[in-house]
Amino acid sequence: MKKGIAASKGYAIGKVLIKEEIEVKVEEKVIENVQEEVTRFNKALEASKEQLFKIKEKAEKELGADKAAVFESHAMLLEDPEFAGAVQMGIESNKVNAEKALEDVLEMYSNIFASMEDEYMRERGADIKDVGKRILANLVGKASGVSEYEDNTVVVAHDLTPSDTAQLDKSKVIAFLTNIGGRTSHSAIMARTLEIPAVVGLQDITSAVKDGDSIIVDGIEGIAIINPDEETIKTYEEKKVAYEAEKEELKKLISVKTVTKAGKRVEVAGNIGKPEDVHQVLANGGDGIGLFRTEFLYMDRDDAPTEEEQYEAYKYVLEKMEGRPVVIRTLDIGGDKTLPYLPLPEEMNPFLGYRAIRLCLDRKELFKIQLRALLRASVYGNLKVMFPMISGLEEFLQAKEVVEECKAELKAEGIEVSENIEWGIMVEIPAAAVYADELAKHVDFFSIGTNDLIQYTLAADRMSEKVSYLYNPMHPAVLRLIKMTIEGAHKEGKWCGMCGEMAGDEKAIATLVEYGLDEFSMSASSILNAKKLIMQN
Amino acid sequence: MKKGIAASKGYAIGKVLIKEEIEVKVEEKVIENVQEEVTRFNKALEASKEQLFKIKEKAEKELGADKAAVFESHAMLLEDPEFAGAVQMGIESNKVNAEKALEDVLEMYSNIFASMEDEYMRERGADIKDVGKRILANLVGKASGVSEYEDNTVVVAHDLTPSDTAQLDKSKVIAFLTNIGGRTSHSAIMARTLEIPAVVGLQDITSAVKDGDSIIVDGIEGIAIINPDEETIKTYEEKKVAYEAEKEELKKLISVKTVTKAGKRVEVAGNIGKPEDVHQVLANGGDGIGLFRTEFLYMDRDDAPTEEEQYEAYKYVLEKMEGRPVVIRTLDIGGDKTLPYLPLPEEMNPFLGYRAIRLCLDRKELFKIQLRALLRASVYGNLKVMFPMISGLEEFLQAKEVVEECKAELKAEGIEVSENIEWGIMVEIPAAAVYADELAKHVDFFSIGTNDLIQYTLAADRMSEKVSYLYNPMHPAVLRLIKMTIEGAHKEGKWCGMCGEMAGDEKAIATLVEYGLDEFSMSASSILNAKKLIMQN
Repeated sequence: MKKGIAASKGYAIGKVLIKEEIEVKVEEKVIENVQEEVTRFNKALEASKEQLFKIKEKAEKELGADKAAVFESHAMLLEDPEFAGAVQMGIESNKVNAEKALEDVLEMYSNIFASMEDEYMRERGADIKDVGKRILANLVGKASGVSEYEDNTVVVAHDLTPSDTAQLDKSKVIAFLTNIGGRTSHSAIMARTLEIPAVVGLQDITSAVKDGDSIIVDGIEGIAIINPDEETIKTYEEKKVAYEAEKEELKKLISVKTVTKAGKRVEVAGNIGKPEDVHQVLANGGDGIGLFRTEFLYMDRDDAPTEEEQYEAYKYVLEKMEGRPVVIRTLDIGGDKTLPYLPLPEEMNPFLGYRAIRLCLDRKELFKIQLRALLRASVYGNLKVMFPMISGLEEFLQAKEVVEECKAELKAEGIEVSENIEWGIMVEIPAAAVYADELAKHVDFFSIGTNDLIQYTLAADRMSEKVSYLYNPMHPAVLRLIKMTIEGAHKEGKWCGMCGEMAGDEKAIATLVEYGLDEFSMSASSILNAKKLIMQN
Repeated sequence: MKKGIAASKGYAIGKVLIKEEIEVKVEEKVIENVQEEVTRFNKALEASKEQLFKIKEKAEKELGADKAAVFESHAMLLEDPEFAGAVQMGIESNKVNAEKALEDVLEMYSNIFASMEDEYMRERGADIKDVGKRILANLVGKASGVSEYEDNTVVVAHDLTPSDTAQLDKSKVIAFLTNIGGRTSHSAIMARTLEIPAVVGLQDITSAVKDGDSIIVDGIEGIAIINPDEETIKTYEEKKVAYEAEKEELKKLISVKTVTKAGKRVEVAGNIGKPEDVHQVLANGGDGIGLFRTEFLYMDRDDAPTEEEQYEAYKYVLEKMEGRPVVIRTLDIGGDKTLPYLPLPEEMNPFLGYRAIRLCLDRKELFKIQLRALLRASVYGNLKVMFPMISGLEEFLQAKEVVEECKAELKAEGIEVSENIEWGIMVEIPAAAVYADELAKHVDFFSIGTNDLIQYTLAADRMSEKVSYLYNPMHPAVLRLIKMTIEGAHKEGKWCGMCGEMAGDEKAIATLVEYGLDEFSMSASSILNAKKLIMQN
């Protein structure tokens, strides 16, 4: 038995297929014929595009357009003239082989993304690595196309890239296990999206098994049992049946309104990063969108999204949600999240730096484009807007001033704006929680961002390996701040939601219900279970 | 009139002397004769040593041994075989000129220090830059030795290095003005130590004046008036007289016990970084040491200080303070403060990372050396020990366990330990303030570290130019946390102090007295004024 990190729930009993990593070691070589080397790189780039196109086709057919979307950002990178240009320049000016020039550029790109806190941003880093590996493999003639799997396959790998994961054919691959990764690593997130059990961070699982081994994957306890005996298999078959029955049972909650034991009606909503994600929220019975991270609109591009583009995205989400509440967070960029067209100062502690509302108030022209798009889209649904990283009243009032400016502009242009938009703030800085009772007099609602609130309250970066053990949502001080925030809101007759991971955390839900939280927002796949738990409390 | 940042209080009316910066531009050259280049570097090193020796002699004679101490760390660097070795290696392996090799090594050294938060650590970075400049100047034959000044000189410079500042002959130089720097920059700190008025951050003062201009320096408002008229001079002469009379008046408070209007006796103590600093605290009427930052003992060396060395330092302070309370903070290293012999993981947000008590609990062998030294020294005075960066009860209890372990060892070795040591914590993480009432049941005292507490509470790194405007000690949430901490302590009959800059802040003192703060600890030069203000409230 091997113990790892439970990354995606469920049980699977199947046969091991070890997925070898194509490891290309890059050696720097001085080259004579620069033109020849550039041509070699371009050929590898073309081959990569063709392979990706085929993988995408297969993924679309077998997994649906949604899951295949990951390859669009792959293709985008391959077609980005700046990316190819940078490699070409590397070859030409340093007179090095294509492999080395490519590695340098990849390193630069992936360094920017690798250590980011936001899932969506980190995903971009994994994409780049993934595409890079493919080009490298093509350079040395080792690239793989579409994989074929047998029935009941449990894929075992050192790590899975986005394209590996998206290629997992759900009708054949029933689970996966990896040596590295954590609960929020890319492969773990993909496993939850694909709804197949997965255990990550198993350290040496690739060397502990061989192809064809029989194996049990327990995605709840985070264990893998290699070549189990009959009795163990029987136990797990029973567990699997029970788990799946429970899952079916949960599906009955899709259209049920969530009411606590005390009779309080609460909203269970979904967090989304892309407009298309609304469908998964609706499919899982979400009462609304509790957090639309708008950063996605700004990423993977050479210039800021136009007002029109943003307007379309917000309108799409509002329309699809058909009058259900949609909380859109204004741009939370800066800090660990940077954009190519928005040069930011280098900071020693980006989490304590120039980001989110601080940046938006400083760069009003950028902020106004988003606010105008939000105001214009507001007539298509039930819009609530919140500002991230608010530390005091002043910032909220300043942001509202910019809103009024945009409203006046739109009015002068004869454009309609809803009168019922609510304006709230993320409570994710300790100061906002401590001062919640006063802030509540001015805002329409709070949404507690626990990921950041916990980090700041405990002064512990949860991405730092050495101190992540301190990151504890149930720390008594964190709970007190949450309670203060909810009570502060209620005192002024305002509502309080939560859109951090904690809102879907089984250990936290009872406490949050007790404190009187009005809205729980989480990833779509956690909604049904949260509904069940809330109704038990 | 020019407006800058008031760096050191007082008024001066004198004549401008512009101190030109010796700017040596380093050009990289490929060299043929490596040995010749190494010799050239060694000669410059020797010349620098000689000059420094003379400057130090002069400083000792004119300013006293204390002020001349800054040159010891200069000399230490010059004599550090690793430093010289690194430059030599640079010359040899890269075949570059000594200037370039030196520049590379200096950059490496100064990068480590330059962006640090702690004053004492940053000072080291300035020292290195300073010494580096001197060697460079010697390499190109432009070095300066001891400067001579006329009476009533106001030195005007782009910036002042530690050796510039220490060379300012107080009998002749009556103030200084610089283009760059802030209230906590090295030159500002030195000005306060020298007790001469200074205004920094004036941006272009060097080009706005010429040698011999008459000038008024107002170190209270932070302004400089160039070639003032008769009337203005008269006004400032009066201000100067009044200010100096007030200063004399303050001196009467040296031996006065500080009592608030409500009749509460409070302690006004000093923050120190080096054992010798106790003398300045005593000279300014400090009731004790409220914070001894022990990092200094660990710096500027190739290996960790031994138990014996630490014991001597703690004993020195305890003895000199003759029974007055001495609060010693255990090692707060890591984060932005690194040590050559203690390799630390690279972190994206060092302020939210592996530092202070987190590091000490993880590296118990290092922690135990300090605790043993503290326990052994405890018999020589009134020792109170506090742990930095405590985020919850668990950490305090773990630290106390290590203390008990050390006590048992010492007992077995027959070494005496005081029974009256108090064990407290720094309250500098929001969680500790929010949870203070519960923590107070276990600790003997709190000391609020406002610099960090404010940073974390507002999620704003005060060293980051773009967000330092958010760093506000009077933010209502910060004040609430301070109040919660003090009330939490008092509820359990414990005392609460404050050792951040806020304790000496004129704008804050009335509020802190109102909240019932028991101990105010600050830089020695602020003690007398704080005593006065506390007694008025």
